[in-house]
Amino acid sequence: MTTIRSPLSADAKKTTVEELQATLIELIDLSLAGKQAHWNVVGHHFRSVHLQLDELVAAAREHSDLIAERAVALGGSPDGSPESVVAERAAGAMPTGFLKDDDAVTAIVERLGRSIGRIREAMRAVEEADPVSQDLLNEALLDLEKQSWMFQAMIQT
Amino acid sequence: MTTIRSPLSADAKKTTVEELQATLIELIDLSLAGKQAHWNVVGHHFRSVHLQLDELVAAAREHSDLIAERAVALGGSPDGSPESVVAERAAGAMPTGFLKDDDAVTAIVERLGRSIGRIREAMRAVEEADPVSQDLLNEALLDLEKQSWMFQAMIQT
Amino acid sequence: MTTIRSPLSADAKKTTVEELQATLIELIDLSLAGKQAHWNVVGHHFRSVHLQLDELVAAAREHSDLIAERAVALGGSPDGSPESVVAERAAGAMPTGFLKDDDAVTAIVERLGRSIGRIREAMRAVEEADPVSQDLLNEALLDLEKQSWMFQAMIQT
Amino acid sequence: MTTIRSPLSADAKKTTVEELQATLIELIDLSLAGKQAHWNVVGHHFRSVHLQLDELVAAAREHSDLIAERAVALGGSPDGSPESVVAERAAGAMPTGFLKDDDAVTAIVERLGRSIGRIREAMRAVEEADPVSQDLLNEALLDLEKQSWMFQAMIQT
Amino acid sequence: MTTIRSPLSADAKKTTVEELQATLIELIDLSLAGKQAHWNVVGHHFRSVHLQLDELVAAAREHSDLIAERAVALGGSPDGSPESVVAERAAGAMPTGFLKDDDAVTAIVERLGRSIGRIREAMRAVEEADPVSQDLLNEALLDLEKQSWMFQAMIQT
Amino acid sequence: MTTIRSPLSADAKKTTVEELQATLIELIDLSLAGKQAHWNVVGHHFRSVHLQLDELVAAAREHSDLIAERAVALGGSPDGSPESVVAERAAGAMPTGFLKDDDAVTAIVERLGRSIGRIREAMRAVEEADPVSQDLLNEALLDLEKQSWMFQAMIQT
Amino acid sequence: MTTIRSPLSADAKKTTVEELQATLIELIDLSLAGKQAHWNVVGHHFRSVHLQLDELVAAAREHSDLIAERAVALGGSPDGSPESVVAERAAGAMPTGFLKDDDAVTAIVERLGRSIGRIREAMRAVEEADPVSQDLLNEALLDLEKQSWMFQAMIQT
Amino acid sequence: MTTIRSPLSADAKKTTVEELQATLIELIDLSLAGKQAHWNVVGHHFRSVHLQLDELVAAAREHSDLIAERAVALGGSPDGSPESVVAERAAGAMPTGFLKDDDAVTAIVERLGRSIGRIREAMRAVEEADPVSQDLLNEALLDLEKQSWMFQAMIQT
Amino acid sequence: MTTIRSPLSADAKKTTVEELQATLIELIDLSLAGKQAHWNVVGHHFRSVHLQLDELVAAAREHSDLIAERAVALGGSPDGSPESVVAERAAGAMPTGFLKDDDAVTAIVERLGRSIGRIREAMRAVEEADPVSQDLLNEALLDLEKQSWMFQAMIQT
Amino acid sequence: MTTIRSPLSADAKKTTVEELQATLIELIDLSLAGKQAHWNVVGHHFRSVHLQLDELVAAAREHSDLIAERAVALGGSPDGSPESVVAERAAGAMPTGFLKDDDAVTAIVERLGRSIGRIREAMRAVEEADPVSQDLLNEALLDLEKQSWMFQAMIQT
Amino acid sequence: MTTIRSPLSADAKKTTVEELQATLIELIDLSLAGKQAHWNVVGHHFRSVHLQLDELVAAAREHSDLIAERAVALGGSPDGSPESVVAERAAGAMPTGFLKDDDAVTAIVERLGRSIGRIREAMRAVEEADPVSQDLLNEALLDLEKQSWMFQAMIQT
Amino acid sequence: MTTIRSPLSADAKKTTVEELQATLIELIDLSLAGKQAHWNVVGHHFRSVHLQLDELVAAAREHSDLIAERAVALGGSPDGSPESVVAERAAGAMPTGFLKDDDAVTAIVERLGRSIGRIREAMRAVEEADPVSQDLLNEALLDLEKQSWMFQAMIQT
Repeated sequence: MTTIRSPLSADAKKTTVEELQATLIELIDLSLAGKQAHWNVVGHHFRSVHLQLDELVAAAREHSDLIAERAVALGGSPDGSPESVVAERAAGAMPTGFLKDDDAVTAIVERLGRSIGRIREAMRAVEEADPVSQDLLNEALLDLEKQSWMFQAMIQT
Repeated sequence: MTTIRSPLSADAKKTTVEELQATLIELIDLSLAGKQAHWNVVGHHFRSVHLQLDELVAAAREHSDLIAERAVALGGSPDGSPESVVAERAAGAMPTGFLKDDDAVTAIVERLGRSIGRIREAMRAVEEADPVSQDLLNEALLDLEKQSWMFQAMIQT
Repeated sequence: MTTIRSPLSADAKKTTVEELQATLIELIDLSLAGKQAHWNVVGHHFRSVHLQLDELVAAAREHSDLIAERAVALGGSPDGSPESVVAERAAGAMPTGFLKDDDAVTAIVERLGRSIGRIREAMRAVEEADPVSQDLLNEALLDLEKQSWMFQAMIQT
Repeated sequence: MTTIRSPLSADAKKTTVEELQATLIELIDLSLAGKQAHWNVVGHHFRSVHLQLDELVAAAREHSDLIAERAVALGGSPDGSPESVVAERAAGAMPTGFLKDDDAVTAIVERLGRSIGRIREAMRAVEEADPVSQDLLNEALLDLEKQSWMFQAMIQT
Repeated sequence: MTTIRSPLSADAKKTTVEELQATLIELIDLSLAGKQAHWNVVGHHFRSVHLQLDELVAAAREHSDLIAERAVALGGSPDGSPESVVAERAAGAMPTGFLKDDDAVTAIVERLGRSIGRIREAMRAVEEADPVSQDLLNEALLDLEKQSWMFQAMIQT
Repeated sequence: MTTIRSPLSADAKKTTVEELQATLIELIDLSLAGKQAHWNVVGHHFRSVHLQLDELVAAAREHSDLIAERAVALGGSPDGSPESVVAERAAGAMPTGFLKDDDAVTAIVERLGRSIGRIREAMRAVEEADPVSQDLLNEALLDLEKQSWMFQAMIQT
Repeated sequence: MTTIRSPLSADAKKTTVEELQATLIELIDLSLAGKQAHWNVVGHHFRSVHLQLDELVAAAREHSDLIAERAVALGGSPDGSPESVVAERAAGAMPTGFLKDDDAVTAIVERLGRSIGRIREAMRAVEEADPVSQDLLNEALLDLEKQSWMFQAMIQT
Repeated sequence: MTTIRSPLSADAKKTTVEELQATLIELIDLSLAGKQAHWNVVGHHFRSVHLQLDELVAAAREHSDLIAERAVALGGSPDGSPESVVAERAAGAMPTGFLKDDDAVTAIVERLGRSIGRIREAMRAVEEADPVSQDLLNEALLDLEKQSWMFQAMIQT
Repeated sequence: MTTIRSPLSADAKKTTVEELQATLIELIDLSLAGKQAHWNVVGHHFRSVHLQLDELVAAAREHSDLIAERAVALGGSPDGSPESVVAERAAGAMPTGFLKDDDAVTAIVERLGRSIGRIREAMRAVEEADPVSQDLLNEALLDLEKQSWMFQAMIQT
Repeated sequence: MTTIRSPLSADAKKTTVEELQATLIELIDLSLAGKQAHWNVVGHHFRSVHLQLDELVAAAREHSDLIAERAVALGGSPDGSPESVVAERAAGAMPTGFLKDDDAVTAIVERLGRSIGRIREAMRAVEEADPVSQDLLNEALLDLEKQSWMFQAMIQT
Repeated sequence: MTTIRSPLSADAKKTTVEELQATLIELIDLSLAGKQAHWNVVGHHFRSVHLQLDELVAAAREHSDLIAERAVALGGSPDGSPESVVAERAAGAMPTGFLKDDDAVTAIVERLGRSIGRIREAMRAVEEADPVSQDLLNEALLDLEKQSWMFQAMIQT
Repeated sequence: MTTIRSPLSADAKKTTVEELQATLIELIDLSLAGKQAHWNVVGHHFRSVHLQLDELVAAAREHSDLIAERAVALGGSPDGSPESVVAERAAGAMPTGFLKDDDAVTAIVERLGRSIGRIREAMRAVEEADPVSQDLLNEALLDLEKQSWMFQAMIQT
């Protein structure tokens, strides 16, 4: 049976791996939702929204890989299957079909808000158990909260 | 209502967009399955399989973006949500938990075989309707069939 | 007298070179029209349209060089003079003077539509005569049809 | 006492160094005002304005360094302190707090106009005294006047 | 109505924009003529002439963009349409069909001579009105006169 | 009225944004003071001090942008105007005129000491309120404290 | 026994692999003949021919690798040994010893002509069996026919 | 006497510098042990282990430099001599002579485990004294624990 | 008749050119054999062997070009035709068809051993005649002997 | 007889070419003197002076090439032989043997002063005859006067 | 038992591997001593010495890897453990604690002198046995003797 | 008095430094002669000769720096002044004024021949005294003899 020896105690490992898993789900969901909107957006702000979405996707993909590999490094086994994304994500389904630019931005802002909320919980939860993982979650939050501001700024009227 | 004027006739557009959509599902599924195995693989061949899987993921991601953007350029609206991936993909669920290297390779070979079969159907189906899309599908097949050989080669005994 | 030995039969060469020449005219016209709009566009969407137009120009220039060199490789002699562009292009003159952003986009969409129509004819016409040239035309269409979608998306209301 | 031997006569040096100093103040002011707007802008054109402002800041920073180093090369001692910027700049204070995109652009256009006016004076003033410095000022004007057009274009209605 | 506020007086603007427009026509004409020769040249010196022509085209394209954008920055509206190129250029039509290498070089030398003459006029004409534009024209002349020497050197016997 | 939804509670946001604002002032001040010394330094160690100062400026600029954007991401509105820098910075005015190398280093060491002190306060103050911002402040401190060592090392006798 | 599962039917695989093998032989032969001429060419056009030959070699090597790997991906086993090159190539032996530049070009043009003829046969033969491989052969032909034009152009008198 | 003014209190400095020194010893030891194994490994997995070891060495070298420079920035004087490495490292001597691949991996896993344990102690010890150093130690742990997983994964049977 | 004036005496030239020619044959043979194995290898170590072989091919190609160009620089005329490779190489034919990984490595080790032996003879033979060529042969040996170790290491059991 | 047609009148050409030739001599002399000092400098400031001298050499080489090619573009024939450098340069011989750092800097400052003086004369002399060449001389002066400041700054006490 | 087949006779192998091992010890010692000084140096020349030391470390690390891999390629097993470095190096312990710049340079010059002496012995010793290794040692000496000059030049008074 | 401690005995140092000095003179002479011809060449082969000459200049400059720095590393003081070049070079003055392409090539071939002859003497002379310097001279010869072949090849009729 596979055993990657964890640098953490059993309890700390359990807590940390669970929170990393929840974060992984949020990040994969954001990368898929971001691409969905990237392809389907239309409207006068098409180019700005289309490009901003790809920056979000790039950030979400990069952090998802770091988070998942951290989970394995702690002895956990990450699950990034689409069925788990559907089952465990904080937000519901993205709208399908073409998306007007403001609607796309609004949908992403709402989704980012839920993901950030979930990952902030994770960050607080691992504070004692593993400061190394907390730093990693902080870096993901830094990028997602920056994206959230940028998308919000686009719909200020 | 959004309308992107298609360079194709209505029939040709319908056929082509449907086949591109099916291909998109396969490519997203491969990118998620590839990452899942990339994180969970263990065994003497860990490094080779881990790295080869990331080349597969990179190829699947690149082609998925090209295919989805082609669908929009033809006036279609691509759907890359995780729930559609689960519902429409050719293969079933990936195994969860740690994966022995040979098992990971075998699972990917099987999955790649199904995806290639489905995309070859798509390629033949659009031959008349849109040779431009056919070329794009050919390029995806070229890369996936190369990956399929490489993973197969790894389990020849 | 100069003779570049063609890999094609006389008939196939004649057909293919004529279609490549027509395509060359469209691509040079698009590169000049794109730059004209790139310089003269004004309006709230100035930056998006200004930058998108330079991507169109880059694509048109790159494909025009590939197409013209293909014509010579088949033994033809391409003509890319401005007088031939004026005489043979599918569209009429571009508006002069400053261009409001939506008007610039509308003008480019209309022009791209005509060029794509003409190059699709060329692509079908060379299918039997020279599949190598067909692939080259497919690649030009892929990029132009992607540009066409992006400009159309910008004026969806 | 420090003396950098000037390649210019005493009069020519005095004139040129004074004009370079005035230009330096304008360029530092533009770089700070540009960043201020870069951070505080909101509205539908957020991304375009946010990015365009960073191009302005990059240009202002680059030219400020060239101008200040030119002043030293002529034996002068440039002063780029924030108190001197406040005291000597052509424009008044930037608005604080969040800025609607059109308001940000309008504020920058007004500011750029004053700076350009001041640097054009400098350029004419050094024409006889030092053509080398005139060329350097011309290069700064070229970039600032290009930025001025681009921001103006964004608010044409 | 669109108005880009010019940093120049009305007279200086009129003079400068007209000369920049004339220069733009020459540069676009050179880029098209250069490509025409690049594709059609044959002879023992094919490779040298083919490559040298692409360096000329790159220089002409780069300067045409700088010149046109300078005209807009001064409040003018540049016209780079093929019909204006045909109507306003200093030289006549390029020969069509294949070109022996020496003939291609001779045609380009003659054409470059006319363009340089026209742009030198422009450079002198804007000297008072706008030294910033004069510097830009000087840079274009520097590159074109270098190209002219290189092509002349190739046919010295 | 503009509202960027903060991921923090109202109290946490208030505390964090105030500390980020104070840090921003220090970083802008360091970047301007560093440039001032970079231009005016003379003496046998000119090259070393001149180059080291530009590394300090680069670090200060990079962190100032990260810090300001973090403030907006939390719903705050950063103020980086020169008048605020003068009013709020920890240190007084930099000496003007040429600076002997040792004097330049001494002035920078003193200034860095004050800024580091102020930012360490900020870092401790946000510890509870926002660990994500704390990490960002830690990264700024890491670079500034490294610069401080290097400048101190230069004047050890 | 090794078996790479082919995405093609047995017949389609047999046809395609045979044609890819024939193409591989031509490409290796061209890369060796090109290097042979690259080293032994002399004459007034030495530099042009020497460099052009290295571009041919680079193209031949790149396509030979793509073609051979395609054959394996289809379940075939490519043979690129020098004895097979000698036995199966379309052309005869290259002249040995120093080569006058025109003679080198003439020899390469003749050789390229035979290779292109053989690969065009291959391209037509796989049209039905495997459009993916046809595209790959088209890309090889595109490059080789471009090289053929360039070498022919060099000996037009 | 040399004194680098520390941003920490005397106690906080003492604690932090001691922990950084201990970490430095571990990182230098890992870089030397990693190279030793990199050169001497043999076996079927030679290439994977040889390359993975160089990634470990690169990580260890990079962090050792960051850690040592942090110690100086706090006013400490780091000691990275080989005699101190031998005297203070957590693990004993590496085996000499050729190493079978599995044995090399096992030795490295064991050594990494001890180093990680020691650095985790350091990380907890500086938590209060200097959060900036804690973050730096977290980054080292992140990379070492990732390496530890990867080497462990290679010997899972 | 072509004569490249040799910097060596007639005897020294004869000796050196003959040894360089023999080395050239070995290097071309290694590059072709390496590619043959690169394409046909299968087995659990597929990825490692496949990639290692491409490093061998790259080294062999690079040195073959340097060696052949050295021969011409000495007034010789190198022969790199496939028929000469078959006739003069130190080893016999490579096995055809798919190759199990260990068999591929064993075949390459044996072949490298013969080539290294032949090139060591060449290196000793030119020692007096031309130290410049000896250094070039030393560099080829350095790379080939490194490759030989790496392939040997892979089959140590 | 060789004739490169000049874009200038006979008088303007004569004046300009003579001044460019004088500038060329100064720039080659500076590049040789700079290298001489670069190799022979010793003293506590060795590294700073050694590196600064290579920046001077790079600048002198770059401008010498631009200046010489400008002379040919105007129909002149530049002379950069070492005997002409010795005969026509503004300064005398450099000291030979090792150079203490301060002495090296002093020698270079003196030499740069003379060269700058001579090139300023040239710049004024061509003002009417050829503004294009004047700009080129201005760019050389900008770099040399910057170098002069930097070397002077190094010996301020 | 592991056996890498040596290209050398038993005697030649023994001699060469022993000398390479001695060289390896010197190079690792230099890299550790260089870093030690890099971190602990203070004084007016801090920046120059700090940077020069990192160039020495980079050179020592690069050559140590080449030398160690050469030893394995000859069938030897290199030993780079810290305990062997302490036991076998030519020089004694480096001073610990902060180092005044001149003292740091003096210590490195002395150490470099001993290492160079030891490696020159090695170079002469392998001359007959293996000219390939001699060349490799020559390259290490070239870099170390260059570093030695540069450090000596820094303390010439 | 400056003394760089030589790694060589007094005799070996004297011999080696003298030969390096002679080589330095040849290399500087080649770099100046190469540039002279680069600027003044005309004729049908202008482009090939112009570019080939710049490759020669780049090689001569690179090796001259390596050779001069080697001389200092051995305790010598290199002399690269133009007066020494004139006095000590193997060849006489280059022709001045425009140069027909064949004449330029002939002049360079003759000059290269003399320089190579002189450097071959130097290489043999240092063989015993300093093999490290011999290797450096070998590398210079390798490049110069390659250039010599290429220029000779250009005038084979």
